[in-house]
Amino acid sequence: MSILEQAKRAKQASFEFKNCPLEIRNNILKDLALIIEENIQNIIENNNLDIEEAKINNMEEHLIDRLTLTEHRILSMIEGIQEIIKLEDPINNILENRILDNQLIINKVTVPFGVIAIIYESRPNVTIDCAALCIKSSNTCILKGGKEAKFSNEFLVKLIHEALIKNNVNKDTVVLVNNPSRTEVAKLMKAKQYIDVLIPRGSAKLINYTVENSTVPVLETGAGICHVYVDENYDENMAINIIVNAKTSRPSVCNSIETLLIHKNIAKDFLPKLNTVLKDKNVKLMGNKPVKEIIDVELIQDNQYDIEHLNLTLSIKIVNDVKDAINHINTFGTKHSESIVTNNKENAQTFFNNVDAAAIYHNASTRFTDGFVFGLGGEIGISTQKMHARGPMGVKELTTYTYHIEGNGQVR
Amino acid sequence: MSILEQAKRAKQASFEFKNCPLEIRNNILKDLALIIEENIQNIIENNNLDIEEAKINNMEEHLIDRLTLTEHRILSMIEGIQEIIKLEDPINNILENRILDNQLIINKVTVPFGVIAIIYESRPNVTIDCAALCIKSSNTCILKGGKEAKFSNEFLVKLIHEALIKNNVNKDTVVLVNNPSRTEVAKLMKAKQYIDVLIPRGSAKLINYTVENSTVPVLETGAGICHVYVDENYDENMAINIIVNAKTSRPSVCNSIETLLIHKNIAKDFLPKLNTVLKDKNVKLMGNKPVKEIIDVELIQDNQYDIEHLNLTLSIKIVNDVKDAINHINTFGTKHSESIVTNNKENAQTFFNNVDAAAIYHNASTRFTDGFVFGLGGEIGISTQKMHARGPMGVKELTTYTYHIEGNGQVR
Repeated sequence: MSILEQAKRAKQASFEFKNCPLEIRNNILKDLALIIEENIQNIIENNNLDIEEAKINNMEEHLIDRLTLTEHRILSMIEGIQEIIKLEDPINNILENRILDNQLIINKVTVPFGVIAIIYESRPNVTIDCAALCIKSSNTCILKGGKEAKFSNEFLVKLIHEALIKNNVNKDTVVLVNNPSRTEVAKLMKAKQYIDVLIPRGSAKLINYTVENSTVPVLETGAGICHVYVDENYDENMAINIIVNAKTSRPSVCNSIETLLIHKNIAKDFLPKLNTVLKDKNVKLMGNKPVKEIIDVELIQDNQYDIEHLNLTLSIKIVNDVKDAINHINTFGTKHSESIVTNNKENAQTFFNNVDAAAIYHNASTRFTDGFVFGLGGEIGISTQKMHARGPMGVKELTTYTYHIEGNGQVR
Repeated sequence: MSILEQAKRAKQASFEFKNCPLEIRNNILKDLALIIEENIQNIIENNNLDIEEAKINNMEEHLIDRLTLTEHRILSMIEGIQEIIKLEDPINNILENRILDNQLIINKVTVPFGVIAIIYESRPNVTIDCAALCIKSSNTCILKGGKEAKFSNEFLVKLIHEALIKNNVNKDTVVLVNNPSRTEVAKLMKAKQYIDVLIPRGSAKLINYTVENSTVPVLETGAGICHVYVDENYDENMAINIIVNAKTSRPSVCNSIETLLIHKNIAKDFLPKLNTVLKDKNVKLMGNKPVKEIIDVELIQDNQYDIEHLNLTLSIKIVNDVKDAINHINTFGTKHSESIVTNNKENAQTFFNNVDAAAIYHNASTRFTDGFVFGLGGEIGISTQKMHARGPMGVKELTTYTYHIEGNGQVR
């Protein structure tokens, strides 16, 4: 079946699924959790097929790790589904209500998007996460996973179909396009007649390719060049704790920091102390000339602060003041998560008011930017654009609205 | 100055203007209203330069009408500004607030987009409308008007700059790119580093061109293939009133209807009566073979119901029932405004639940889809996509949000 035929079927399924009662949507998710639990060994076996192929293709070790489904990781997937079941229904909520002078009654009501296409890479648990969030929000989804996870994804979607069929719901409500050609993916990105929103999840390269080639509206996610700025008047222990956490607790994720900005008046005192701590944590440091004059770092130029390391590397820059820090962030940041460490409330407010990012922190680690932490019960991605949703996107962010207008013959 | 240099300046201005206090934003608008009032004759003189050129170029009469600014139209522009002044501040509103177990305080706060680029055609009053809505919402705007209105737009933006300067606000807060080349416009559409959102306003051709060529996120507006469906159990007078209003009160605007759908069991009785009324209103009718068997219409094929007439032409189709009507609308509609005329509440509910559109009406004209009518105090356009905003977009729809997170050293 062609990719457009698959998309067309998803669109058709969406018209029915948009009115699927909450009870049935939750039952699908409950059944899915049970079916996954019964199939842990089968999932691992299918996942092994992907891992074997990855090894033959000499895939890097950390990428093989991302691809691997262990029993522990599968149980986490089930927990994720159970969290989503608990969420309130995001559909059919009246956001606003007004009665006009002519007695027209206007209700602004939440509805699902319809068809959401998600283009992602590597980690096969994304397949279950995304499908579960879409099912909860009455959205039909088209999943375009990475070819490196094709056996895992195919088996997982087979389990999702079992749960759908058990509840008499059209299996085209969750469509997997597995291993399509580049031409076919390009067609998907322009299939405005069938797809309402496109969400790319993965590398900056994947996201940029999607933005450049889509006519379907794109919800951009992910890339995170995040910063911590340490201001002149600061608490040393707090600063070290936050930097260590934001850099080292999980360096491969987007809410980790890539760059440390530090006030010029404290650099000479603070940098050597920080250096000692980060050395213990195996963090590699980069910095421009002024930084190198204080501690031993790999020299970079002023225009090289645009790197998303995604590993234990930290770029450091000395800035004049909070405004200089903000200016650096607004130039090199990706509008994701930014933090200021300061005891000066006025500077914190200046930072809040002027940094352009989804999440702005005062005296806390950037690592908190996450759908679970923010109370959204999961996330389909972290938006780094400003349209529709910003920051972590949960089921509520997978809805749009429509106006229902009740009259008795009114004309204008 | 190159178009990208202009966009860069707008971006720089946006960092200051996003924190501009409400009082100053309102003062700019008050001054603008006064300055326009003092310059009515000058505006008309500059507008005449465009009209003269239009006549030399043999522009069609109805397009010259759209281009023309009369004293009455200029006074309407002033009224529009005064309505916008009255609106509540859409910026700095706390949408949600939560305190996590670890005492992190999370505030979800409304903020302006930053830089909004608007690409539009013909009517020069759009220049004032858009600038006023952007000023109110603390957004910097880049206005790309039609070349046919270049003298009018240049003079109007000169007046806007006077109002900005009088309030010590950077004049790059409202940037006019007048008469750029196609290559330059293409650059604007890809200037993600300077522009946060792009809003095309105008013909379907302009909108499609923008969607296909932009990497900046687009808020699609406008094209309206709207329908009225008359169900089996209906009030004849109400149906005629609604159809006449929705078709003839202002056929050139997007919330007018293009197609009438009619239940098969009432077509023979209703169509001849309707025909008499519409003939009096000079409405031209089109329809497929089953329609032509009942009344005299220009014959069209089943796949020709995708025309946005924007004039006194109405396409008619006979359908089997409400589901058939919904299916037609979801195939040929543009997700704008759709109406059902019926006394059957169940069918009205089916219509509400299954039609995919921004505004769905029961027993009322589609002509009410409008920012003023919906209580938004004006509109920058009517969204026909589902991301971010749907239907009329006022100042609230020109905002996004950011999370402000206050901590005391929390790490994850």
